[in-house]
Amino acid sequence: MRATLMYGAGDVRVEDVPDATMREPTDALVRVTAGAICGSDLWPYRTMPHEEHGRRMGHEFLGVVEEVGAEVSSFTPGDLVVAPFVWADNTCDFCREGLHTSCRHGGRWGFDLDGGQGEAVRVPQAQGTLVKLTVAEDAALIPSLLTLSDVFSTGHHAAVCGRVGPRTTVTVVGDGAVGLSAVLAARRLGAERILLMGHHPERTQLGRRFGATDVVAERGREGAERVRELTGGDGTHAVLECVGTLEALETAVGAVRDGGVVSRVGAPQYTEVPLGWNVFMRNIAISGGPAPARAYIEELLPDVIEGRIEPGLVFDRTVGLDGVPDGYRAMADREALKVLVRP
Amino acid sequence: MRATLMYGAGDVRVEDVPDATMREPTDALVRVTAGAICGSDLWPYRTMPHEEHGRRMGHEFLGVVEEVGAEVSSFTPGDLVVAPFVWADNTCDFCREGLHTSCRHGGRWGFDLDGGQGEAVRVPQAQGTLVKLTVAEDAALIPSLLTLSDVFSTGHHAAVCGRVGPRTTVTVVGDGAVGLSAVLAARRLGAERILLMGHHPERTQLGRRFGATDVVAERGREGAERVRELTGGDGTHAVLECVGTLEALETAVGAVRDGGVVSRVGAPQYTEVPLGWNVFMRNIAISGGPAPARAYIEELLPDVIEGRIEPGLVFDRTVGLDGVPDGYRAMADREALKVLVRP
Repeated sequence: MRATLMYGAGDVRVEDVPDATMREPTDALVRVTAGAICGSDLWPYRTMPHEEHGRRMGHEFLGVVEEVGAEVSSFTPGDLVVAPFVWADNTCDFCREGLHTSCRHGGRWGFDLDGGQGEAVRVPQAQGTLVKLTVAEDAALIPSLLTLSDVFSTGHHAAVCGRVGPRTTVTVVGDGAVGLSAVLAARRLGAERILLMGHHPERTQLGRRFGATDVVAERGREGAERVRELTGGDGTHAVLECVGTLEALETAVGAVRDGGVVSRVGAPQYTEVPLGWNVFMRNIAISGGPAPARAYIEELLPDVIEGRIEPGLVFDRTVGLDGVPDGYRAMADREALKVLVRP
Repeated sequence: MRATLMYGAGDVRVEDVPDATMREPTDALVRVTAGAICGSDLWPYRTMPHEEHGRRMGHEFLGVVEEVGAEVSSFTPGDLVVAPFVWADNTCDFCREGLHTSCRHGGRWGFDLDGGQGEAVRVPQAQGTLVKLTVAEDAALIPSLLTLSDVFSTGHHAAVCGRVGPRTTVTVVGDGAVGLSAVLAARRLGAERILLMGHHPERTQLGRRFGATDVVAERGREGAERVRELTGGDGTHAVLECVGTLEALETAVGAVRDGGVVSRVGAPQYTEVPLGWNVFMRNIAISGGPAPARAYIEELLPDVIEGRIEPGLVFDRTVGLDGVPDGYRAMADREALKVLVRP
């Protein structure tokens, strides 16, 4: 079968690989009908040292079940399913607490497993990992359903960890696909006011459509000051940090209200965070991490199916498998916001 | 009147100062009947550069109201009152949210104001700041009531910010008065298991009396490993960091369970915190800060008055005003856990 491999920074190839095959009775085999390139894929795309055998890529996908193991009872061949970006048994104590990213029998796609940017995937712990979708494979809903795999679930996680609810004021740092998803998630949870920090007009425009009440184009310290100006000098109750750089995190700390939360979902490209006396004295909390998407899909699904939200609008380009390398380039060059892959 | 001043590291003096006097109609004048030396006073005691005019000390006190301003209606001369370690109007939006430490019209004792390690204090925003105590001035409850001013409220804040409740497992880092108070607070909130990290047997013994189920004498990385060993490899849901050093915070991060909270109430003696990829991937939150004691006193008071908890056991020495300098020395030398001052 064909699948995407990354061999190093800027070096993405679509190649023939061994067919995905069943190994364990807990596996399912899924033919991928929609995959995606993630903003987090761009970090290795920019910095990964050369690897001789390459690394299988893609952790967002939905598709059709082709085969199930003896211990998988919830799915049958032909079912349309979405996979969260980590696989998990959905039964261990961490999963029962909703922290599927720390599942005792879970893991990540790619590396030694199949990736979602390919024709098919062997899904471990399929019974716990997959969620059945009751729509046709070519439904117009597919892009939005695909976002449950990662990007919209990640925006939702940012909002949940930021304790967003009615009467919460929110700043979202970053107008990438995750930031825009965080805007939509905050809006869905009833946030009173949502300030989107971003300076790409075509992106912040979608942000407004998703529910941003204000757009702050200034960056860094100036951006944080602007958020304070717009909020009577105080900053917002929650700041959702959707970039992952130290500058974005510092901006978030500068924009948060005393007693508030900086919720981070951008994969950190830093090791140390300035959290000394001044941050302490303001009783500011730092939360967040990778989203336990599996914990959220059932809650978010009805709003997608019934059309109350359309998170799939973050996809502004669709490619076939052969177009994946150029999709990486387009996202890295900020030519595309997020690329959907139709293998 | 007599009051305590710090002139620099190791240089604490009790001197004649101008009498505390009323200035604003929102003031009250309180004759201090019980004050305390705080662990946080030891930071300047160890490091403060020489200051020619000295700094007024003490932020924990209770006493008798001697005079009230025209705008203070809740108190009359003769009332016994306790003061939280920051003063606050108790009416602004931050106070209404329970964050009195960020009050829009509040501040800290000492510096330009009177301190609690003296004969009397002018209390700004007295109506909002003070809480009336319905016990006699010489009651055996006084030490416990005094802890509401700071140390026990701070332990409670650590537990609240650590989301401690029934079925929570908790590690407390530090066997100082704040750490022991955090143990008691966690126990009061129903924590299932409380691991106290400390290596002073006379202190950890009080910790056990307060509710610690386990004592971990190892420190740093070894201590965190021991906590993991004792919890099936996972660490605890909450870690209450009651020291303030970088080592203590790193230990806390090492001892916390995935998805858990490190709640810090030790005044940070660091500026940067290692919160990179590994911490992010575990969905660990950092919370805490200075305790809004005023927000907690009414909740904690009945348990003290009715004898269900005895947080005053952290005081193991009582001095008069003249004994304050030696009280600092004794605490710095770990000869005393916490010193009560009877002016």
